[in-house]
Amino acid sequence: MSFERIPPGSRFFALPTPFRMKRGGVLHGARLAYETWGRLAPDAGNAVLILTGLSPSAHAAAHAGDASPGWWEPMIGPGRAIDTDRWFVICVNSLGSCKGSTGPASPDPASGEAYRLDFPELAIEDGADAAHALVASLGIERLACLVGCSMGGMTALAYLLRHPGSARTHVNVCGSARALPFSIAIRSLQREAIRLDPEWREGRYDAEHYPENGMRMARKLGVVTYRSALEWSGRFGRVRLDPDRRHDDEPFGLEFEVESYLEGHARRFVRQFDPNCYLYLSRSMDWFDVIEYAPADAAERVAAALASIRLERALVLGVETDILFPLQQQEEIAEGLAAGGAAVTFSPQPSPQGHDAFLVDIARFGAAIGAFLGGTGPAAGV
Amino acid sequence: MSFERIPPGSRFFALPTPFRMKRGGVLHGARLAYETWGRLAPDAGNAVLILTGLSPSAHAAAHAGDASPGWWEPMIGPGRAIDTDRWFVICVNSLGSCKGSTGPASPDPASGEAYRLDFPELAIEDGADAAHALVASLGIERLACLVGCSMGGMTALAYLLRHPGSARTHVNVCGSARALPFSIAIRSLQREAIRLDPEWREGRYDAEHYPENGMRMARKLGVVTYRSALEWSGRFGRVRLDPDRRHDDEPFGLEFEVESYLEGHARRFVRQFDPNCYLYLSRSMDWFDVIEYAPADAAERVAAALASIRLERALVLGVETDILFPLQQQEEIAEGLAAGGAAVTFSPQPSPQGHDAFLVDIARFGAAIGAFLGGTGPAAGV
Repeated sequence: MSFERIPPGSRFFALPTPFRMKRGGVLHGARLAYETWGRLAPDAGNAVLILTGLSPSAHAAAHAGDASPGWWEPMIGPGRAIDTDRWFVICVNSLGSCKGSTGPASPDPASGEAYRLDFPELAIEDGADAAHALVASLGIERLACLVGCSMGGMTALAYLLRHPGSARTHVNVCGSARALPFSIAIRSLQREAIRLDPEWREGRYDAEHYPENGMRMARKLGVVTYRSALEWSGRFGRVRLDPDRRHDDEPFGLEFEVESYLEGHARRFVRQFDPNCYLYLSRSMDWFDVIEYAPADAAERVAAALASIRLERALVLGVETDILFPLQQQEEIAEGLAAGGAAVTFSPQPSPQGHDAFLVDIARFGAAIGAFLGGTGPAAGV
Repeated sequence: MSFERIPPGSRFFALPTPFRMKRGGVLHGARLAYETWGRLAPDAGNAVLILTGLSPSAHAAAHAGDASPGWWEPMIGPGRAIDTDRWFVICVNSLGSCKGSTGPASPDPASGEAYRLDFPELAIEDGADAAHALVASLGIERLACLVGCSMGGMTALAYLLRHPGSARTHVNVCGSARALPFSIAIRSLQREAIRLDPEWREGRYDAEHYPENGMRMARKLGVVTYRSALEWSGRFGRVRLDPDRRHDDEPFGLEFEVESYLEGHARRFVRQFDPNCYLYLSRSMDWFDVIEYAPADAAERVAAALASIRLERALVLGVETDILFPLQQQEEIAEGLAAGGAAVTFSPQPSPQGHDAFLVDIARFGAAIGAFLGGTGPAAGV
């Protein structure tokens, strides 16, 4: 019984073995799942790598091998903001995830059984190093652009810090240089909800005994922090569920539309993401901190670490209503990269949808990314 | 085995029996716990009633019957913002709570056993009506000032809407006229955490089988939304726990100070508040909506309901960093009460502590309330 959920059109890259991890662990025979769109130019100068948030697969958009819509479908394709007529686009499923890349739900070659909690401690940097190895294996020495969204924004910074000169430009979407205590608190609660579920059983669940309630709570709490109070006030207000959608025998059951919305999100997620993978990836976000890369004598260590990154240009996008990766964190990234010499566009968006705006407010995010990557405007051309 | 937690210096008021509740239920032999400070003037014109947030008891400050510090200790006493040399101060434990007033943890006279989920559906209005009956029983026809904090700010509005002319002035502290979907979502998750705990057993827990994990999650999520990201960034940053406070055998155990802070809050709360009472009070906040009191033909129903309240003066306090009762909600109250003819001071506070600032930022809140209630300044004198 496996809890891996592998998109049908995945390709796989065998990571160098042994693959040494930041916190001391070692993986043997590990792999990354990835997908690509467009064609790599003969000089390999048109590659765009996309690093994802916590839960998406590498299936960012439809392609010949998998026609189903991807998680960033309206953003990627011929003539779209990330124009696949021009760019060779790669999206990677994060190391430690359960969507084709090796993670806690994958078989441990030593035993043939899933790693579960025997998976080594996972750091954001491991995802970055694995993605870098994949890019190198494709004959790409230097990315035209490294795009990282949310957790992927952290992974992208790790990628740039650990592999100098690996990208000419960078788009950081709702990322951060280090987790702040509010976000740590939220993720800690999400992990606790899973760990407190008696069915979690220290990671030894199966299909019948599965920490469904813990995953449900974790996801709902996630959605609460991915969106914004402003959006919900306009979208749900105090609207009640229709009587035929309510269970009157449940005294504290769902009553408001917003509760039903959360329930729907939870239902769609619970069995589609492996709980142990969730724990590992979530914890890696709390651990990540660019100050580990600052010169030892730097006074402002976050800024100094970011300023050590060399890029030609960068676009840093954030959302005014984001409570999980608040806008000051993107401002900090923009200032740091600019101090490192990049021509930086800091682009705060007024989207009402909070952290998730990059997934749904394509009008704004597509315009900004499209302009940066190549169409028009002062920031045009990579 | 009772889960009631009754402060030693409580007084009790026997509610009129039967006590008819807003949503159709009836209580027999119900009571309110309350405490008082100062002396009622012969004309009963100096009474200040304090309505609390979800969890506090009536023990707002020390007095001869209970010298332990109360939940608003620095605010109440001789020479303090709520000056007990001048005012006769009453604080009530909310109906439905477990700190001396009748609620789901109290014995049902019909059976002698705790009501648990047989307690009738509780509305904010029931707490308001019960408090009003207590005030009347003390010979007070009209309060000099009605003070309501957080949930108590809702209860105070219900009190004023249902009992016209019952107060000359009003201090609304971090209250709201109706719950918005973000707050509903948070409270729904808190209730779900309790209900999903296998030990909750549809409300039939006992001391050995107690929904401790559900209450822990509910409280932690509460604390996350009672404070602010800004405060925590300054207070905790990314500081780790000392190694001797960590359990290295727990792979996803506490690591950051902010996690330990939440854990401490949860531990102090879990056995001190009855889970069923929590569910009832929490749900009553989601249900409350002043628009039920608006004229049927009103276009702006929240504003119209608030404008139907007659007060001489009002002070409406909110906090810029409050995410649970955001500042626009206090602005809405202030505008509504002003439209009703009151001289209103809307006083947004820049406190970093979020919703809980009224409990901890006594410098700001005490100054504003003290000035309103009587000392100095243009808003002086009640």
